[in-house]
Amino acid sequence: MTAFLEEHAAQVRQAADRIRPHIRRTPSLTTDLDPELRLKPECFQLTGSFKVRGAFNAILLLAAQQPRPAGVIAVSSGNHAQAVALAAATVGLSALVLIPEDANPGKVAATRALGAEVIQEGITFANREQRLREEMAERGLALVHPFDDWNVIHGQGTAALELLEDEPELRVIAAPVGGGGLLSGTAISAKSHNPDLRVIGVEPAVADDAYRTWKTGSIQALAVAPTTLADGVRTTSIGMRTFDVMFANRLVDEIVTVTEEEIVTAVQVAWSRLHLALEPTGALPLAAYLSGKLPSERTGLIFTGGNANLETVATLLRPQ
Amino acid sequence: MTAFLEEHAAQVRQAADRIRPHIRRTPSLTTDLDPELRLKPECFQLTGSFKVRGAFNAILLLAAQQPRPAGVIAVSSGNHAQAVALAAATVGLSALVLIPEDANPGKVAATRALGAEVIQEGITFANREQRLREEMAERGLALVHPFDDWNVIHGQGTAALELLEDEPELRVIAAPVGGGGLLSGTAISAKSHNPDLRVIGVEPAVADDAYRTWKTGSIQALAVAPTTLADGVRTTSIGMRTFDVMFANRLVDEIVTVTEEEIVTAVQVAWSRLHLALEPTGALPLAAYLSGKLPSERTGLIFTGGNANLETVATLLRPQ
Repeated sequence: MTAFLEEHAAQVRQAADRIRPHIRRTPSLTTDLDPELRLKPECFQLTGSFKVRGAFNAILLLAAQQPRPAGVIAVSSGNHAQAVALAAATVGLSALVLIPEDANPGKVAATRALGAEVIQEGITFANREQRLREEMAERGLALVHPFDDWNVIHGQGTAALELLEDEPELRVIAAPVGGGGLLSGTAISAKSHNPDLRVIGVEPAVADDAYRTWKTGSIQALAVAPTTLADGVRTTSIGMRTFDVMFANRLVDEIVTVTEEEIVTAVQVAWSRLHLALEPTGALPLAAYLSGKLPSERTGLIFTGGNANLETVATLLRPQ
Repeated sequence: MTAFLEEHAAQVRQAADRIRPHIRRTPSLTTDLDPELRLKPECFQLTGSFKVRGAFNAILLLAAQQPRPAGVIAVSSGNHAQAVALAAATVGLSALVLIPEDANPGKVAATRALGAEVIQEGITFANREQRLREEMAERGLALVHPFDDWNVIHGQGTAALELLEDEPELRVIAAPVGGGGLLSGTAISAKSHNPDLRVIGVEPAVADDAYRTWKTGSIQALAVAPTTLADGVRTTSIGMRTFDVMFANRLVDEIVTVTEEEIVTAVQVAWSRLHLALEPTGALPLAAYLSGKLPSERTGLIFTGGNANLETVATLLRPQ
């Protein structure tokens, strides 16, 4: 094991201890679909997604700083927003979240319900970084980045850590990749558990920046935020830290892409055969499995969340 | 504890040991909806419902008889059919299942896929008992009754047994009631665990035979099979044995009824807040909870299954 991996694996274990009182330990599930599959349903996590793992780890560390920051700020169109809102409220810090105008209204309402201040007016995918810098400077807020932050990466790695405690014999582990926070944390946990465990990231074909980054060995970005059913992975590129973990240190073995049709099928199968109400992003690893893009070995699929727009899902479920 | 309860509780524990190698231990889940709730998601059970518990217990005992029966027979419009098919195939007995013509086609296909012979032609709710007697006599088959069979009742009681192992401090436990097999087994496990634990059955208001049976103290039957979204509880009356457990021995404290609208809301909440893809029958205890019909104490809800017709559910999920 490299010193890099050893150090980050130790930090994932510390994150697990730190966040344990605040999050749920989700179960691992087996399924009639295939006896070799093991499912990690993070849809049952607090707020309905794995994002609380990284948010709690980062915000518990911020809250322990002297002096404490005036509050935290995040940019998110969805699950990270709710996670930051909950973690900040738990430690008694204020939270400001910038959410693009076209975001899922259910996720916006849930973020407000958790006590965060939400600014939506005039926020777009294009200008949100600029607005973020302005608000941070003006109010003295600490940023909780959705993926390119070591504390967030270490927190996200605790999902795979739990899965591997329950299922130590996994040969393959697959997780969605957007900015790469979850996949980086997963890779750290997986490769420190067993260097031969194959780590695979799954992304929509219409948002294939991580795939092209893997292929070329340098960060590739999409020109615009892609339109995909998997609205949790609309980031235009991975980050410096997640690049470092996944590709510079080669802790991720492969990125596979899935079509929008394959995502639809996966959501339908998740509902009808697995009985899990996943959001489309959460079903990405299942889409890769169902379309034959994963090895046929004992495989763990990390299902990231379940916060789907009911109307979208009703449309997806209706037989064509 | 009465001798009656003590004996049946011992048989539930024996059933748990007997079926353990053949079924899944489903997890207990907590939820953001209410910190006092504990969920037992039997939608993750083999074949997608709790029914395999009773079917395996009954069929493992039949398979151990000398001489073995020529095969097993069941009447079911749904989950019991798949459960009997799987259990019979596992022990190497043939299975014949009579399924009414208007049953959910998905459940029929799943039953055939598990190796059972299915007869549907000419089978109605009204004539199926008669057809059953004819086929049993002709072929020498052993009946696996969906609820009024002690071995089935004891098998179904293992779901609550597991839930109470995980959550010994429950004060209330709620389960759907159709023929009463699950609720009887649940009551045996619950009252032998703690006589003060409140056991509540939930049924659709349009199928309120168990409610009226509880109120009057004698078995009340519906004139015809009711039309309810909860197609798993369309039985017209409970059985002699389930009456004995639930009401003669007073192991069930209360039956509550829910409207069809309350069932729709429960399915929507199960999907959107709990991220569980329940079938309407499986959501009955949630309907009772959401409509304020359960006590506000630490409560376990047994969600019986997830084998919903996708098109029906797509319609239910679509915001009105």
